[in-house]
Amino acid sequence: MQRQFQILRKMSVLTKQTINPRIVEAEYAVRGAIVLRSDAYKKQLASGDKSLPFDKIIACNIGNPQSLGQKPITFHREVLSLINMPGLVDHEDAPKIFKADAIARAKYYLSKIPSGTGAYGHSKGHEVLREEVCAFLERRDGHAADPETIFLTDGASQAVQSMLLALIRDHNDGILVPIPQYPLYSATIAINGGSLCGYYLDEKSGWGMGIPELTRSIEDARNAGKDVRALVVINPGNPTGQCLSENNMRDIVQFCKDEKLVLMADEVYQENVYAEDKHFVSFKKVLKDMGPDYDCVELASFHSTSKGFTGECGRRGGYMELVNFNADAMEQLYKLVSINLCSNIEGQLMVALMTNPPVEGDESYELYIAQRDGILSSLKRRAVKLVAAFNELEGVSCNAAEGAMYTFPRITVPEKAVEEATKRGVAPDAFYAMALLDATGIVVVPGSGFGQEDGTFHFRSTILPPEEAIDEVIEKTAKFHAEFMDLYR
Amino acid sequence: MQRQFQILRKMSVLTKQTINPRIVEAEYAVRGAIVLRSDAYKKQLASGDKSLPFDKIIACNIGNPQSLGQKPITFHREVLSLINMPGLVDHEDAPKIFKADAIARAKYYLSKIPSGTGAYGHSKGHEVLREEVCAFLERRDGHAADPETIFLTDGASQAVQSMLLALIRDHNDGILVPIPQYPLYSATIAINGGSLCGYYLDEKSGWGMGIPELTRSIEDARNAGKDVRALVVINPGNPTGQCLSENNMRDIVQFCKDEKLVLMADEVYQENVYAEDKHFVSFKKVLKDMGPDYDCVELASFHSTSKGFTGECGRRGGYMELVNFNADAMEQLYKLVSINLCSNIEGQLMVALMTNPPVEGDESYELYIAQRDGILSSLKRRAVKLVAAFNELEGVSCNAAEGAMYTFPRITVPEKAVEEATKRGVAPDAFYAMALLDATGIVVVPGSGFGQEDGTFHFRSTILPPEEAIDEVIEKTAKFHAEFMDLYR
Repeated sequence: MQRQFQILRKMSVLTKQTINPRIVEAEYAVRGAIVLRSDAYKKQLASGDKSLPFDKIIACNIGNPQSLGQKPITFHREVLSLINMPGLVDHEDAPKIFKADAIARAKYYLSKIPSGTGAYGHSKGHEVLREEVCAFLERRDGHAADPETIFLTDGASQAVQSMLLALIRDHNDGILVPIPQYPLYSATIAINGGSLCGYYLDEKSGWGMGIPELTRSIEDARNAGKDVRALVVINPGNPTGQCLSENNMRDIVQFCKDEKLVLMADEVYQENVYAEDKHFVSFKKVLKDMGPDYDCVELASFHSTSKGFTGECGRRGGYMELVNFNADAMEQLYKLVSINLCSNIEGQLMVALMTNPPVEGDESYELYIAQRDGILSSLKRRAVKLVAAFNELEGVSCNAAEGAMYTFPRITVPEKAVEEATKRGVAPDAFYAMALLDATGIVVVPGSGFGQEDGTFHFRSTILPPEEAIDEVIEKTAKFHAEFMDLYR
Repeated sequence: MQRQFQILRKMSVLTKQTINPRIVEAEYAVRGAIVLRSDAYKKQLASGDKSLPFDKIIACNIGNPQSLGQKPITFHREVLSLINMPGLVDHEDAPKIFKADAIARAKYYLSKIPSGTGAYGHSKGHEVLREEVCAFLERRDGHAADPETIFLTDGASQAVQSMLLALIRDHNDGILVPIPQYPLYSATIAINGGSLCGYYLDEKSGWGMGIPELTRSIEDARNAGKDVRALVVINPGNPTGQCLSENNMRDIVQFCKDEKLVLMADEVYQENVYAEDKHFVSFKKVLKDMGPDYDCVELASFHSTSKGFTGECGRRGGYMELVNFNADAMEQLYKLVSINLCSNIEGQLMVALMTNPPVEGDESYELYIAQRDGILSSLKRRAVKLVAAFNELEGVSCNAAEGAMYTFPRITVPEKAVEEATKRGVAPDAFYAMALLDATGIVVVPGSGFGQEDGTFHFRSTILPPEEAIDEVIEKTAKFHAEFMDLYR
């Protein structure tokens, strides 16, 4: 049997050795080895096995709110439900179930998109929906927006991937990416065969983003022969949670102008700001406020239905706005996305609903506001609680989660544990995270999956478990941590 | 103003000259220049402009049934509608609107996927849905299927793109692709920087697929230094509509074994067979029927919710089944799709609904069968009618559309028209198709967008306009064609 398998391996066209090596090189720790083991544990628990030291898996590895009990916004779901069933908007019993404004909205969309959710639409997304995104952007930024520059995509991930595919011609093309970063960037750069040029966020100053470090990074890259094409900024940060100040953002725009870089602004956490003294400002607003001298700076801004308080991850809805891009480059991007025909229409509708929610006077308004504020205030409480708890642990320090959905505590891994990890060929923080899973069922992502300064170790934990479960996460983590430290002391 | 624009152009990072040249190289005629012009006409008509020689656009360029009035399958939509609104399955008024079996199915899915459509799921797709696909495959083929080998994707396009990305390491890697072909293949191979190695389908024998021509193609490719990695077969054919015989398919499997090729079987039109003497057989069945000696042949089969009689294009639902693939290669493919987290959950649900429709005794069964048979028999009538009409035109010959959703008539473009096209720098059949649009509002795709033997010209027209509109398409095309032939005689 083993022998037969060996022969089969030998004869296969696709093996790990012969597959596109850029796929092998790419790493995506958010769904890596630890998650695979947690999946196996989940099946073990479901089968009735009682041998594990925990009775459930708590997934803190991924920003997936509705998998942890967050409820969807009712209005949005009513509209989707109405649109999906032909004739339902006019059914005599519909008003017994659906609110009047949801019915009206569904009728409006169906009047503009008579084929509903079942037909391919424009490759950039249905125009009526892109117009709603533009109205949102204009309200948000006080600057004009153009539907022709909006691309509705299958989540922000697809938009980021398209932009990186457009930017990277070969391994000489470099992209400036924060360290730590969300591994979509490193993985996509690897798959496209480009060069990731890392710039470090400064943990000591609350994950600050300094221009000197950007300059250091771009100079190093250029000295290594790289053609640096773009700067990725994640604001609020993932995994780090920091919110940039407007001053800082102006300096970043200036940097992009001086260095001729496309600014890729990952702004998917724009609704998720918890720090009292911080608020989200878009790069579009900052750039446009700086006046026409900066209309040469190409900005791609990404947003998603998966985050914020919408949390509709499974919908795969997102968009990018292209500011100051050349018409011919946009035409090429349009052709690129058209090869995939269009993004899924319900994801598009969810983008429109997110950017055009009920307003005062609408029947659904009060519930919408209550749901929005309930989710955001709870996330804030959880962020504060988790950070405080992590800071109580021996050798752990954790910056405040000013925004986004994560904490990123720095941990001290004892020397003996580092040795043990090295012996097993895994990163010390991956060793720690695996041990945490084995002991508690809690799934986090090791800092090495995001990048970190050499010799420092972290993990990323979402703030998403429901409030009652957060205490459990804290208690179990604290117990595990103390035992781990003792074991390897 | 012009000068300022020039300066802006010069300063942009991304222009047609500096963007990834593989994007510029890629062509996707299904949404190319003719479609862009038809979009402009559509806006012109919507604005009340009466100056055009037609009063509507008839989109025969794309297999998008519901945009042309095809109704969705009611059961499928009831289930989606129920799942989308939390609590609706238990609402006291729900039974007034939804059928009992739809409510039961929605409850079943929600019991297995408590987070519904709002959360990310497994990167291969929710297991409960992959299991339904497997049950369908086992019924269809009489051979075992394994959920671990099923990947639910955002349409079949995404699955094809992932597979080609895995196969193509550099420009030396070749993929055997039919000519004519669906341009997803040529575009994706171009974007991945691989080599398209064309093999010609034989128009004279009803677009037959001959092994000698495959051998000719692979030898030419190898003589040119290519490492040929895979064979793409589209069955039923797009744009050509032919259905392969089992004998032919066995020879193709043998060819893949002998030549060590991954067999990429695009089987998205498996429900769309109209020829009386033909029926669809999957490559999985043919391969497995050939016995264990062929368990070394790697087969990737693609299917979609967009075609068949489901026609749910906007849903972006699809799957691929990987047969005989190495575990380590599948692990790499899993990692690749995990970077994008998961395909949209409603697309996944639609795949499950398509593969597990109501059965005899279910409340929705009769309606489901009536809808299915109504759509398929109407498509068949339209296919026959359109082919017959094209064969009436001067200098036009058109093979029967045995399957799929298209006719692909061969046209004789008069010498003078070829000269005129050459003068304008467009392919003669693109010139013809643009003239057809300008005169009639009918949108077709020129054969040059799919590839064709040198010196031959074709266009692809879908069979999807509703039956009453088919006569209009025929009448308008005939009138235009006669005038075009006269003008350039």
